[in-house]
Amino acid sequence: MTLPDPPARSFASDNAAGAHPAVLEAIARANVGHALAYGDDDETRACERRFSEVFGRDVKTLLTFNGTGANVLALTALARPGDAAICTEWAHVNVDETGAPERIAGIKLIDVSAPDGKLTPDQIADHAHALGDFHHAQPTIVSITQSTELGTAYTVDEVAAVCDAAHRHGMRVHMDGARIANAVASAGGTVAALRAMTVEAGVDVMSFGGTKNGMVGGEAVLFLDPTLGARGQYIRKTVTQLPSKMRFVAAQFNALLDNDLWLALAGHANRMATELHVAAGDIPGIDPGPAPAVNSLFPILPPDVIGPLQAWSFFWDWDRSRHQVRWMAAWDTDPDDVATFATGVRQILTGSD
Amino acid sequence: MTLPDPPARSFASDNAAGAHPAVLEAIARANVGHALAYGDDDETRACERRFSEVFGRDVKTLLTFNGTGANVLALTALARPGDAAICTEWAHVNVDETGAPERIAGIKLIDVSAPDGKLTPDQIADHAHALGDFHHAQPTIVSITQSTELGTAYTVDEVAAVCDAAHRHGMRVHMDGARIANAVASAGGTVAALRAMTVEAGVDVMSFGGTKNGMVGGEAVLFLDPTLGARGQYIRKTVTQLPSKMRFVAAQFNALLDNDLWLALAGHANRMATELHVAAGDIPGIDPGPAPAVNSLFPILPPDVIGPLQAWSFFWDWDRSRHQVRWMAAWDTDPDDVATFATGVRQILTGSD
Amino acid sequence: MTLPDPPARSFASDNAAGAHPAVLEAIARANVGHALAYGDDDETRACERRFSEVFGRDVKTLLTFNGTGANVLALTALARPGDAAICTEWAHVNVDETGAPERIAGIKLIDVSAPDGKLTPDQIADHAHALGDFHHAQPTIVSITQSTELGTAYTVDEVAAVCDAAHRHGMRVHMDGARIANAVASAGGTVAALRAMTVEAGVDVMSFGGTKNGMVGGEAVLFLDPTLGARGQYIRKTVTQLPSKMRFVAAQFNALLDNDLWLALAGHANRMATELHVAAGDIPGIDPGPAPAVNSLFPILPPDVIGPLQAWSFFWDWDRSRHQVRWMAAWDTDPDDVATFATGVRQILTGSD
Amino acid sequence: MTLPDPPARSFASDNAAGAHPAVLEAIARANVGHALAYGDDDETRACERRFSEVFGRDVKTLLTFNGTGANVLALTALARPGDAAICTEWAHVNVDETGAPERIAGIKLIDVSAPDGKLTPDQIADHAHALGDFHHAQPTIVSITQSTELGTAYTVDEVAAVCDAAHRHGMRVHMDGARIANAVASAGGTVAALRAMTVEAGVDVMSFGGTKNGMVGGEAVLFLDPTLGARGQYIRKTVTQLPSKMRFVAAQFNALLDNDLWLALAGHANRMATELHVAAGDIPGIDPGPAPAVNSLFPILPPDVIGPLQAWSFFWDWDRSRHQVRWMAAWDTDPDDVATFATGVRQILTGSD
Repeated sequence: MTLPDPPARSFASDNAAGAHPAVLEAIARANVGHALAYGDDDETRACERRFSEVFGRDVKTLLTFNGTGANVLALTALARPGDAAICTEWAHVNVDETGAPERIAGIKLIDVSAPDGKLTPDQIADHAHALGDFHHAQPTIVSITQSTELGTAYTVDEVAAVCDAAHRHGMRVHMDGARIANAVASAGGTVAALRAMTVEAGVDVMSFGGTKNGMVGGEAVLFLDPTLGARGQYIRKTVTQLPSKMRFVAAQFNALLDNDLWLALAGHANRMATELHVAAGDIPGIDPGPAPAVNSLFPILPPDVIGPLQAWSFFWDWDRSRHQVRWMAAWDTDPDDVATFATGVRQILTGSD
Repeated sequence: MTLPDPPARSFASDNAAGAHPAVLEAIARANVGHALAYGDDDETRACERRFSEVFGRDVKTLLTFNGTGANVLALTALARPGDAAICTEWAHVNVDETGAPERIAGIKLIDVSAPDGKLTPDQIADHAHALGDFHHAQPTIVSITQSTELGTAYTVDEVAAVCDAAHRHGMRVHMDGARIANAVASAGGTVAALRAMTVEAGVDVMSFGGTKNGMVGGEAVLFLDPTLGARGQYIRKTVTQLPSKMRFVAAQFNALLDNDLWLALAGHANRMATELHVAAGDIPGIDPGPAPAVNSLFPILPPDVIGPLQAWSFFWDWDRSRHQVRWMAAWDTDPDDVATFATGVRQILTGSD
Repeated sequence: MTLPDPPARSFASDNAAGAHPAVLEAIARANVGHALAYGDDDETRACERRFSEVFGRDVKTLLTFNGTGANVLALTALARPGDAAICTEWAHVNVDETGAPERIAGIKLIDVSAPDGKLTPDQIADHAHALGDFHHAQPTIVSITQSTELGTAYTVDEVAAVCDAAHRHGMRVHMDGARIANAVASAGGTVAALRAMTVEAGVDVMSFGGTKNGMVGGEAVLFLDPTLGARGQYIRKTVTQLPSKMRFVAAQFNALLDNDLWLALAGHANRMATELHVAAGDIPGIDPGPAPAVNSLFPILPPDVIGPLQAWSFFWDWDRSRHQVRWMAAWDTDPDDVATFATGVRQILTGSD
Repeated sequence: MTLPDPPARSFASDNAAGAHPAVLEAIARANVGHALAYGDDDETRACERRFSEVFGRDVKTLLTFNGTGANVLALTALARPGDAAICTEWAHVNVDETGAPERIAGIKLIDVSAPDGKLTPDQIADHAHALGDFHHAQPTIVSITQSTELGTAYTVDEVAAVCDAAHRHGMRVHMDGARIANAVASAGGTVAALRAMTVEAGVDVMSFGGTKNGMVGGEAVLFLDPTLGARGQYIRKTVTQLPSKMRFVAAQFNALLDNDLWLALAGHANRMATELHVAAGDIPGIDPGPAPAVNSLFPILPPDVIGPLQAWSFFWDWDRSRHQVRWMAAWDTDPDDVATFATGVRQILTGSD
């Protein structure tokens, strides 16, 4: 058996991809002369204005470095001493931020079971009973991830139902949108779809991911209810997330927002994941799992092929007890990458060329 | 009176400068294919190796986004519950980080008077009396800034004396090196000078600034005593400072370290500040203050010219009660910028062309 | 139907009981002349010595005000930035301390399912996979409650198995012993039983409850491994738990430790709960649940009698969805209280005198 | 030279004194039957009502264990992320709480010079310049101590001036009233004087000390502006300061408030300090310092007598560089204690009987 060369771009993660050329060009374009630091520059002002345009209303935009920082900033802005945030057991804030929300925002996280990565209105109602009891951390924040860590996406109605349940109990809704672009692309790929699943559905504050969607690095915290962001600038600094030469973060976002590049890139990543899912479905011995809503699939493989496959073209384990792995496409995944990867998988699984 | 056009590059701050071309080229060069995130990539490994080479011993390097984050990471690594850090009243950690060290590291800051921005061994000894008294936060950390916020720089002997005093009392020394390059350039501009004023003087952990010295953005936390950084990777994530596409931060540092570009850039900035100081000394009505050790001067101006000057070419007030301002050169300041700025200042001060 | 007067002492909680006369006498006895504050007094020194005697080795004792404070002190002493503690979903630290451990110790709590209130070695092993992965809060602490919040108690072997599993993974074990006396009384009521289920089983640090067992107020944090408490005095102050006139807390503990009064009181409370359980088993319509291991039972009642019963003699709901309530005996519960309460319950349930 | 026996009650501290008999009686009286925990009891309700009566308006009262806890609770209630509190260099929150405010409230403390222990309106105005600059922790809280750590007391006008300056800049005023009783006693010893220097002067939240004024232990946090305490009950628990058997803390305060016992005790302590100051003024070689405003004096002694004096009857050093010590009277100091102590001091200083 002769394996092909591994694909030029692996299926390990969308943050293993580099930056889109337009992003690098934007950085170079912004690199002219001096500009005051900390956001008092034209690129940042343009970026803030553009986010308001995208959402069709005055949102308060705070640019930050990374997703953990964006989430911590948003949660710190929402939380008061003694508060808690309800999230799923899979939430990035819960399992992939090394306790940053607890340490910095000072909140408790209440994680609930979510086989598909989505929080439900019933779960919010269940925990609302703690409100008013001073022995319990007060669940006044709901944090959801769109698209989710499990490669699913809330429908507009699902987000709206979560927001309604939360607001009914006086809670605020935070959306971790590290991959919001993939969710929007999956729901039609329009600005209208973005608005529908965020501000119109009732989300109070969200992060808008850039890093995983073709940027060198950068995330935006968007206070869709700007009054909640009134103290945001102080909080951004106190959580260490104030970029000095902010023009370079802003320029990247401006490049993404130009001509809806953010939607094109995410839509492409989604399509590549779908292609890979289709290809995997044809390979004997693989349970490809449900068709991906966004840019990742979570197939179950025969246990003894996982190691050889990863040695050939790396990807991450997901649930070792079930021999489940994660394959994730990126903005720059090429159809050839999908074909090559599927070929290799087939060869290793079937033991034949 | 006809003022010249303001200089192309103002004297507001070194973080108002953009990125050096070699830095942008390095980012572009690193932007090839996929690389695993969070530091598991060749650029980061090379960067870590190179910092060890620069210091001539095995240091533990953790790349971060910005100076506040680097300081918070270092202090969090050193501090235990109930600890305090001694610093000057001018320290960036004390006055320019919106309480981030207190909130995230959970420490108390003890700030002491320092007319020249430098901490003295005596001040350390004075506060050592609190050690062992459980009513007092325990001053087990000393934090100094090199070069200082007041444009001065510790000599090698001064750093060593601070470290000796600290170590004698069982304290650890943190150096905020957001502008370490300027201090090293000022002390001879060699790697030997860097080693002498840091690891050889006894500094335990430091940040090595990149942003203010020609990078798009990035700082390195260097545990010169690597045992102190044993848990650094967890702490970096919990303080929100783990870059996802770390190769791009590493590539920038690699560019700076190539052929000692970092020293050339900082040395140039220092020289431009000196040129401006000399020029200012010839202008009647200005008290230019002491000759700059590094890249900033703090002149005292006639009060009524400050506003018009800032309107013409912006810079920051420093101490309004004394009509003192700050002029700061950057890696890209051109001699023409100095000449133009001095001309404008002279015209506004003297009221003549 | 004529209800009897409600019992003089309700079954609401053991912290609804007052103080034992010997405790008040000890306070009065300690109230002679002046004694230095903050523990530099004879009562405190005696108390510290006595705890070492009780445990048969040199333990480090830190007296505190209350159970939340004792837990937070212990967890703060064990935790480093980025750490997490594994506990059950019922743990007091998890659900009844309004997020104090997260805010003050800065840790993440990882709560696991526990139908009987007990953590298992398997659950520890399950979470140990996160060790070494810097994206995840590091589960280096295991926190168990003895006796548990569900009225059960770990056997000596169960504690030892938890400690072994924890230590095998380099984790430390904290025991919330707010009701340790009840567990010891249930396991034979000897000092040997205490030692067996704590220091000999491998517990590293524990709280030893006083408030619920006849004191006015006070808890002791015991570092069974004294090296873990080396910085305990600083931490006690920084978590606000340093009693000023400490002699009065110490005197109460000294009274409890005299002649094993603590065991007598807890044993009595346990017996009263057993008596009530037996009596409840005879009343038609009640599911009394399992025989109580310690001083509380969790019967299931017909839904429509719960309100009237509570109006007659208050107790707390436990799980409203199942019509489950909690009845808890205290050190001062009288057999007459049990008889009276059982009579009232029977009358309200059966609708007859 | 034959020294007399040391005084029965030393001049070390008012927290070295025990509890007033009426306080112990109140505890015993409250120790009847069961009462729900956490404040849902008659003693606590009475205590809350009485504090409102004392202040002549509806104040929100939260009972706590100790002074550090009371201060931390108040500051946590006032602070938002990124905030700072201005206090004096001598403030208990600044130097005697092992960094608890920083760790738990998450705030920065800005300490200012205060030779007499009092903050001035000018100092508030000086720091107000930081408001609105997101690089600086926002000084939105002013914390003063009444009576001060230096044995002085603010006049009513001085408190009002501080409050006016603070409020003019949108800051809130916290008063650490661990020794408020001594200040009130010094200012006339009436409830009217209390109101004048607190709620009428503009203080927003204060602690009302019990421990140092004859209680076994307990402090009250009083939100004079009750809206600021809206979330106080959650915060009290999350900062570990919720007493379980709260009736016993409340009963102590009720005893102190009966017939203005709190004023009688503090007034007596003040008089004893004055007597000692007069006696010390007659002893050659002592600089007794200014006449005490409250219950402590800070004499300067010949350096070689301090050790022998402390060995005979202990007291604390204050400023070793100046050979300054602190002598403090308590509620139970007897005129005989003063006479005996003065005799001993005279003998040791003069070397004669």
